[in-house]
Amino acid sequence: MLPDRAVVRGAMGLPVVGMVGGGQLSRMTHQAAIALGLSLKVLADATHDSAALVASGVTVGDHTSLDDLRGFAQGCEVVTFDHEHVPEGLLESLEAEGFHVFPGAAALRHAQDKVVMRERLAALGIPVPAFTPVATVRDVEGFAQHVGWPLVLKAATGGYDGKGVWVVAAAEEAAEVVSSGVRLVAEQLVPLTRELAAVVARSPYGQGAAWPVVETVQSDGICVEVVAPAPGLSEELALEAQRLALRLADELGVVGVLAVELFEVAGPGGGSTLMVNELAMRPHNSGHWTIEGSRTSQFEQHLRAVLDYPLGATTPNAPWTVMANVLGGDGAEPDLDKRLHLLMGHDPALKVHLYGKAVRPGRKIGHVTALGDDLDDVRGRARTGAAYLRTGEWPSEEGTS
Amino acid sequence: MLPDRAVVRGAMGLPVVGMVGGGQLSRMTHQAAIALGLSLKVLADATHDSAALVASGVTVGDHTSLDDLRGFAQGCEVVTFDHEHVPEGLLESLEAEGFHVFPGAAALRHAQDKVVMRERLAALGIPVPAFTPVATVRDVEGFAQHVGWPLVLKAATGGYDGKGVWVVAAAEEAAEVVSSGVRLVAEQLVPLTRELAAVVARSPYGQGAAWPVVETVQSDGICVEVVAPAPGLSEELALEAQRLALRLADELGVVGVLAVELFEVAGPGGGSTLMVNELAMRPHNSGHWTIEGSRTSQFEQHLRAVLDYPLGATTPNAPWTVMANVLGGDGAEPDLDKRLHLLMGHDPALKVHLYGKAVRPGRKIGHVTALGDDLDDVRGRARTGAAYLRTGEWPSEEGTS
Repeated sequence: MLPDRAVVRGAMGLPVVGMVGGGQLSRMTHQAAIALGLSLKVLADATHDSAALVASGVTVGDHTSLDDLRGFAQGCEVVTFDHEHVPEGLLESLEAEGFHVFPGAAALRHAQDKVVMRERLAALGIPVPAFTPVATVRDVEGFAQHVGWPLVLKAATGGYDGKGVWVVAAAEEAAEVVSSGVRLVAEQLVPLTRELAAVVARSPYGQGAAWPVVETVQSDGICVEVVAPAPGLSEELALEAQRLALRLADELGVVGVLAVELFEVAGPGGGSTLMVNELAMRPHNSGHWTIEGSRTSQFEQHLRAVLDYPLGATTPNAPWTVMANVLGGDGAEPDLDKRLHLLMGHDPALKVHLYGKAVRPGRKIGHVTALGDDLDDVRGRARTGAAYLRTGEWPSEEGTS
Repeated sequence: MLPDRAVVRGAMGLPVVGMVGGGQLSRMTHQAAIALGLSLKVLADATHDSAALVASGVTVGDHTSLDDLRGFAQGCEVVTFDHEHVPEGLLESLEAEGFHVFPGAAALRHAQDKVVMRERLAALGIPVPAFTPVATVRDVEGFAQHVGWPLVLKAATGGYDGKGVWVVAAAEEAAEVVSSGVRLVAEQLVPLTRELAAVVARSPYGQGAAWPVVETVQSDGICVEVVAPAPGLSEELALEAQRLALRLADELGVVGVLAVELFEVAGPGGGSTLMVNELAMRPHNSGHWTIEGSRTSQFEQHLRAVLDYPLGATTPNAPWTVMANVLGGDGAEPDLDKRLHLLMGHDPALKVHLYGKAVRPGRKIGHVTALGDDLDDVRGRARTGAAYLRTGEWPSEEGTS
């Protein structure tokens, strides 16, 4: 139902969708594509990329090369992304040539550049941490006079999983970060209660759909656990978060999944308020729980959105769903076959997702998902499964609630 | 955890599983494999086969050629099947050469040859329709003296979806079938109440797992609808069906999924009894509902079983799950993109599965699944979805309950 510029049909006369990036998001999108009668085309960096191992239509190419992007786009009716690293100028060129690129350059820049994002959100009246672009230590010191030390320095572009984020307690520490030459934004260190995420999707037609708001738990800047729905979140604040995310999707013209990472902070009078931390315009770690936990997964929804199909129901499949990331451990190359075997015997109802990636310390190599009626039980099972796959040792009982 | 003969590992050091046959069963097994960190290898007849369109490791070859099978098996730790058409002698040769072939030849012959199956089940004391191998019209007439006309003639091997099954009312009709030269078995036409299926899985270790028994609805010999669990089935009969299927899996040495198609027939004293109709030793149409309807899908379970991993929980995800097959319609090439679009708008919670196959009248090209608390609603939604994808027209209200 998209305009006719790029009608590229595959099996059953269904549209061909291409995803730039061969990571686990692309891998899981391919799984969802198969059900819809599609076969995702993937532009990967290498043949051993997570998605390249499992998809049939893989092109190895450079996502910073217009030639490679154009060649890839010519075989697709719609092009979408599993990361934000395609330079904005190239996205604009593809759009100017008439390709369907979702999300488009004008939206995606808000997920690519934290300065652009913060300025736009502030202009929209959406609460964000106090921030300012900084180029020198003097800039940082000036900002510290308003927000105090410690404060946060972030790379304006390219950061992920805690990379590109520094909490600095004094000018000397800031100097070290500034000297790296990375373009920076300084932010207030928000005294947050916890982190939440509101994940929504929007189609070109303008339809929006929101999943329940989740709590995300980070360790060393990496998301390690997602609880759906966020325990104890008031209905009022949950609705506010969903409305905020849907409004943002609309204002920024997002097509596809939009994940809005939020801080919950103590508000006046004992209540809580929300601040937007980060945006991602693609399937996101905070939505992995939807594969089993929601009637429509974020991966299927992303495909529906970029194809301008009506969006799917976001009804949860269980009262509680908890997803825990499996990170690479510190030891020698693990015998994952054996660990998987023993874990399946330990918890026959746990759902395991492994990404086919080389195991490196701290790297996201998979995730596990548990569903059920009892939050403590579900959370304990997810934590146990993720810890066991990481370390090969069963965590102590204390660690599971 | 299998013996060491054929350790063939892929990404993350996990075993490589190969499936002979590139149909939709292989396609959906590949979806399940992706989550487990695997990438299914497929031996397909052609590059446009359903699974060949979506899997990365595709070999085009002849499943009746020992050379092709051996070459394929050499790249796999375990070889399994999406159909029963590999000749028994070739399976035995592969096993003699030390390849892991699951299910093995000794089990699979009971799904390949109806005479072998009927004789074995009868010997095990499991109720089956009265039957006899027949070669001449005189044989059929002799059998008719015991069971009466009409009776059923079945091709001993190679039938599926109503093909290879003839209900004959008289000797002249039987003569026509006999003259085709196909090896035949004659069976009593059972006065059945309805058809059920008990789907189970078994691992080499001997672990078994059973899903809830389902009702299957056929039209023109093709399964069109599966209701899980079978409505109104007594717990006693449900347990009997599950026990029977688990016992059969054990007695026949099945590894992987075993689907037991059953007749429910009126028994003495107003009760019901069961008879075994057919066996399939692979993921089966009567288990497609498990993708969304059960904690572990039949496709994941089949992989777990052939890898000798512990089996997954078969807990249902909803009180009722109904799967309806999408068959190819009679009209011109349908605009499935448009139909999918409109169906998604009509029922945002319906799960659609399309197989990437060319649309031909009566051919299974996909299925839809609905879940919920109210059977009439769930069944109506599944029927409506399947009918709309087939015909492009919304069925009348009368047709939905």
